[in-house]
Amino acid sequence: MNTTNSVLVFFTLSLLFSSSLGAVQDFCVGDLKGPQSPAGYSCKTKVTVDDFVYHGLGVKGNTTNIIKAAVTPAFDAQFPGVNGLGISMARADLAPGGVIPFHTHPGGSEILIVLEGTLCAGFVSSSANQVFFKTLNKGDVMVFPQGLLHFQLNSGKGEALFIVGFNSPNPGLQITDFALFKNDLPTELVAATTFLDVAQIKKLKGVLGGTG
Amino acid sequence: MNTTNSVLVFFTLSLLFSSSLGAVQDFCVGDLKGPQSPAGYSCKTKVTVDDFVYHGLGVKGNTTNIIKAAVTPAFDAQFPGVNGLGISMARADLAPGGVIPFHTHPGGSEILIVLEGTLCAGFVSSSANQVFFKTLNKGDVMVFPQGLLHFQLNSGKGEALFIVGFNSPNPGLQITDFALFKNDLPTELVAATTFLDVAQIKKLKGVLGGTG
Amino acid sequence: MNTTNSVLVFFTLSLLFSSSLGAVQDFCVGDLKGPQSPAGYSCKTKVTVDDFVYHGLGVKGNTTNIIKAAVTPAFDAQFPGVNGLGISMARADLAPGGVIPFHTHPGGSEILIVLEGTLCAGFVSSSANQVFFKTLNKGDVMVFPQGLLHFQLNSGKGEALFIVGFNSPNPGLQITDFALFKNDLPTELVAATTFLDVAQIKKLKGVLGGTG
Amino acid sequence: MNTTNSVLVFFTLSLLFSSSLGAVQDFCVGDLKGPQSPAGYSCKTKVTVDDFVYHGLGVKGNTTNIIKAAVTPAFDAQFPGVNGLGISMARADLAPGGVIPFHTHPGGSEILIVLEGTLCAGFVSSSANQVFFKTLNKGDVMVFPQGLLHFQLNSGKGEALFIVGFNSPNPGLQITDFALFKNDLPTELVAATTFLDVAQIKKLKGVLGGTG
Amino acid sequence: MNTTNSVLVFFTLSLLFSSSLGAVQDFCVGDLKGPQSPAGYSCKTKVTVDDFVYHGLGVKGNTTNIIKAAVTPAFDAQFPGVNGLGISMARADLAPGGVIPFHTHPGGSEILIVLEGTLCAGFVSSSANQVFFKTLNKGDVMVFPQGLLHFQLNSGKGEALFIVGFNSPNPGLQITDFALFKNDLPTELVAATTFLDVAQIKKLKGVLGGTG
Amino acid sequence: MNTTNSVLVFFTLSLLFSSSLGAVQDFCVGDLKGPQSPAGYSCKTKVTVDDFVYHGLGVKGNTTNIIKAAVTPAFDAQFPGVNGLGISMARADLAPGGVIPFHTHPGGSEILIVLEGTLCAGFVSSSANQVFFKTLNKGDVMVFPQGLLHFQLNSGKGEALFIVGFNSPNPGLQITDFALFKNDLPTELVAATTFLDVAQIKKLKGVLGGTG
Repeated sequence: MNTTNSVLVFFTLSLLFSSSLGAVQDFCVGDLKGPQSPAGYSCKTKVTVDDFVYHGLGVKGNTTNIIKAAVTPAFDAQFPGVNGLGISMARADLAPGGVIPFHTHPGGSEILIVLEGTLCAGFVSSSANQVFFKTLNKGDVMVFPQGLLHFQLNSGKGEALFIVGFNSPNPGLQITDFALFKNDLPTELVAATTFLDVAQIKKLKGVLGGTG
Repeated sequence: MNTTNSVLVFFTLSLLFSSSLGAVQDFCVGDLKGPQSPAGYSCKTKVTVDDFVYHGLGVKGNTTNIIKAAVTPAFDAQFPGVNGLGISMARADLAPGGVIPFHTHPGGSEILIVLEGTLCAGFVSSSANQVFFKTLNKGDVMVFPQGLLHFQLNSGKGEALFIVGFNSPNPGLQITDFALFKNDLPTELVAATTFLDVAQIKKLKGVLGGTG
Repeated sequence: MNTTNSVLVFFTLSLLFSSSLGAVQDFCVGDLKGPQSPAGYSCKTKVTVDDFVYHGLGVKGNTTNIIKAAVTPAFDAQFPGVNGLGISMARADLAPGGVIPFHTHPGGSEILIVLEGTLCAGFVSSSANQVFFKTLNKGDVMVFPQGLLHFQLNSGKGEALFIVGFNSPNPGLQITDFALFKNDLPTELVAATTFLDVAQIKKLKGVLGGTG
Repeated sequence: MNTTNSVLVFFTLSLLFSSSLGAVQDFCVGDLKGPQSPAGYSCKTKVTVDDFVYHGLGVKGNTTNIIKAAVTPAFDAQFPGVNGLGISMARADLAPGGVIPFHTHPGGSEILIVLEGTLCAGFVSSSANQVFFKTLNKGDVMVFPQGLLHFQLNSGKGEALFIVGFNSPNPGLQITDFALFKNDLPTELVAATTFLDVAQIKKLKGVLGGTG
Repeated sequence: MNTTNSVLVFFTLSLLFSSSLGAVQDFCVGDLKGPQSPAGYSCKTKVTVDDFVYHGLGVKGNTTNIIKAAVTPAFDAQFPGVNGLGISMARADLAPGGVIPFHTHPGGSEILIVLEGTLCAGFVSSSANQVFFKTLNKGDVMVFPQGLLHFQLNSGKGEALFIVGFNSPNPGLQITDFALFKNDLPTELVAATTFLDVAQIKKLKGVLGGTG
Repeated sequence: MNTTNSVLVFFTLSLLFSSSLGAVQDFCVGDLKGPQSPAGYSCKTKVTVDDFVYHGLGVKGNTTNIIKAAVTPAFDAQFPGVNGLGISMARADLAPGGVIPFHTHPGGSEILIVLEGTLCAGFVSSSANQVFFKTLNKGDVMVFPQGLLHFQLNSGKGEALFIVGFNSPNPGLQITDFALFKNDLPTELVAATTFLDVAQIKKLKGVLGGTG
């Protein structure tokens, strides 16, 4: 390569670069205030490295609650840098006795790694209602197929912590108990569609703040 | 689960729920007046159950026409609730002698079920121009692969009715006759690109309102 | 078009057709005995129109059971013609009082049309656990976003029948009750991950044939 | 970087490389004799650079035929290197007066560049049956949306040549005339589903070798 | 088909056409000034055939530059008609001694056809760092799997020209030299992350206009 | 729900369950010895919970090597449970001074969380060769768009450890240095396609074990 003169060089490069590939093709940091489409948020027009870095998972979630656990997501709504990239992350903290109750992620598969403590984790297949559950220790990885009911339970004596990866910027989180009992779905409708006893339903609605 | 005090409960839940998953992840009801993207319409910001329910398929289409048939779609333009969900439906009514002429859906595969009457339905493969056609009776289901030419003909004595499912919120509908004869494509161009006789083309342009 | 001599014609056509597009590109009828991949069943090598037609949805399902309802699918396992086409169909019959209990389809969105009777149908969002439910009459269509908990209940006096389209050849069906109570998931694990009372769990395990 | 000793180096690299990423992730050259899945051919186990190079498009197609044109594809069946890569190419040669008649590619969009001669090319939208056609000269590029009816006609005095790119390893090619007239689809069925006159149909069946 | 009266005809057609399929389903010509989403540009509302035709590839790129080569893209930013269609094209001109240096397309696979001259082209697998390279002559086609490092070198005596198809409207172009040396990435960081000597880095930064 | 008699119950359930959804729809654990398709490995027929759990990421990688770092993947080849699920994970250990040199993942986006130590991590856009880099501490998350060149460097005094999530079961890993210098690509070809000096190339080939 002859490094002739820099004028030529710049001319050349801007020419080759006339392809003018817009930043959008590489990434599309979400503009949380812009219009949304089925593909996600609109793209921010000015982007810096801070759009691709998120600090929120470095802080332990507050587990002083009924499930003795907390899920802290880095989904597109919290971390707009993942918008359009088909990926996200979350952390889960479980105090002793804590549990992430049966739930699904409608929009993605999940893979977790245990960082601290001992879990009992499992999922149920949709076909044969076959149960897959296992005790997981520090360093263990488990994968949960998209949309299937699964749970994680702190089965150790101390605290537990795990990190989760998703293949969606917003996989969703539908906790069965919340879907059934933490809203105004009429009790008789819950009873008819779950075969649970009315007393049971009312008890859990009471705990979770549901009405109806 | 100890149902300690409700203050704690509410605190807890809002905490766990700090994931604040936007409604967009679950669905994206189309805002027919907003900007469109390759992924579909923009999402409406306020949504009710009525956005997910459509009444238009309960009404028989008007078959007093040249094909003695009517297709009534529930695509995203009619039923914005399917926007972004990759699915839609339609009904087809055929008077005696009615036909849905050869057509394609550029954007999706089709599956139909016969609710009333008798059809002769078929498609042609792109490879060997192999013909697959069959008489279908009430309750029969047939699938038509994406993009392939197919037709449905009322081959019975009475009326026929079938329901169609698509794997796209807007699969498109390209009726070959309409594409060729119901527009201003010059007759000589149609002749050159179809090998049809000019008289035949002019006749069908006349029937369908085409010019040129 | 000069119809010179047919020898020339045949030569020409086979030449143009030298593209020899294999049947696989148009469709891939499932070989239920062949190896499966993440994309579905292997393709059958010989295909007829009967591979694309299914008669199983013409027959009412047996509703003499606990849910007083029956779901009859035309998924790839029953109707291999839909393999690889991203689409399938099912019918649901509900006797008076019948219900399709809360369930999800992990692999697809659902669109239904009521053919007979009156339904109460609804789903719950994953975000705000917002409930969307509505009474549906004959001809009404409702769409259920992928992966979300939903139900259909016969809310009329007579029988109910609806047809469902899916945007997957095998969307899956995970009935919450079956996932929790119709297997060997230990009772204490169900209790810990659902907050249901042990007595309630044992009662439903008894009904559904679960153990543990 | 300290280039200590090569023993260490090799140890290191094989260690880092213990990720042992299989060749399949990078590409999946089609094994034309293996089982096919909805995603394409099975992968060959031994691959060389010759699997990624194809010589067939360097040869002009034989245009001594009825359409005075030839399409030479480099689809997966001819060029197994594109299997699984979502891309393919073809060349089209048109003698004076030659035409690629109205056709669709059910499985992909098309982009062409004219290398020689003058074309009249166009497509018809599925919505309003709106016609988009234009004269194209050497160097001009035109894009044809997936599944829509389109044509290319040599509108110049000399030969014409164009190169086509597809976003599918096997986009399919369904020529309307061939689908209607070059098979055993009964004449009355063609008439009923196209509104063409019986004489016209029989004439074209005669030319194209169709029966029925 | 009885061509009764044209009033009836028009009534019929507008009825059948009440499906009112929006133009968006067929295509989505990019509005370069509108909001962008992860799926690409917003759709223009008024479209003509000129939106689907591009003249920019008919002109030879200026190769009077350091790589003695030029890439002229027809991506969505230059040719908005490809927006949403998953396809694009480009031309590459190489003077004698010209080269398209090692680069990747993060967003798509590439297929090229040589129109003029002789190339040495190749790519490297991500797994075994296996090299696949070959001399290509006029008419030869080569495919490059998505995201893999590849290059094209004019290995003949005259000029070279090739046409490229991509399966993305904006596949991106990341030239390794430009990514490393044509920006303000600190020299020591380049050294630490590439093991190149500092003098080498500074030399290339000088040539390419990088700083730091 | 009337728990009439269990005979009825079992009859009912097996009937409703006649949908016989195959396990394949929920997951497709890879059979590493079976045929591969573009969609991944064939599915194992017998599956247990151990197929969904992986222990390999619990062990620190050996960093006694030239990059003073180790990447330990849980891709489909190591952890067949992720086959078909669009997700995987890896861990990276970096001794003081360790680095994961510039590399790409051709098949997926990456999201990392720092578990230990301090990193300098960054990527380069394909468009403007814009550099995005940042110091990351424990708990920080960073996302790297698919296919873009990026690096991670231990910029602290102690060891560093981070966990990575990918949205592919086999995202690939192409380390630029390895692609250029750790194979038999002829030195003059590397020189011509990278503008690196021959001496520099030979030096790195020497270090990395390349030939040619």
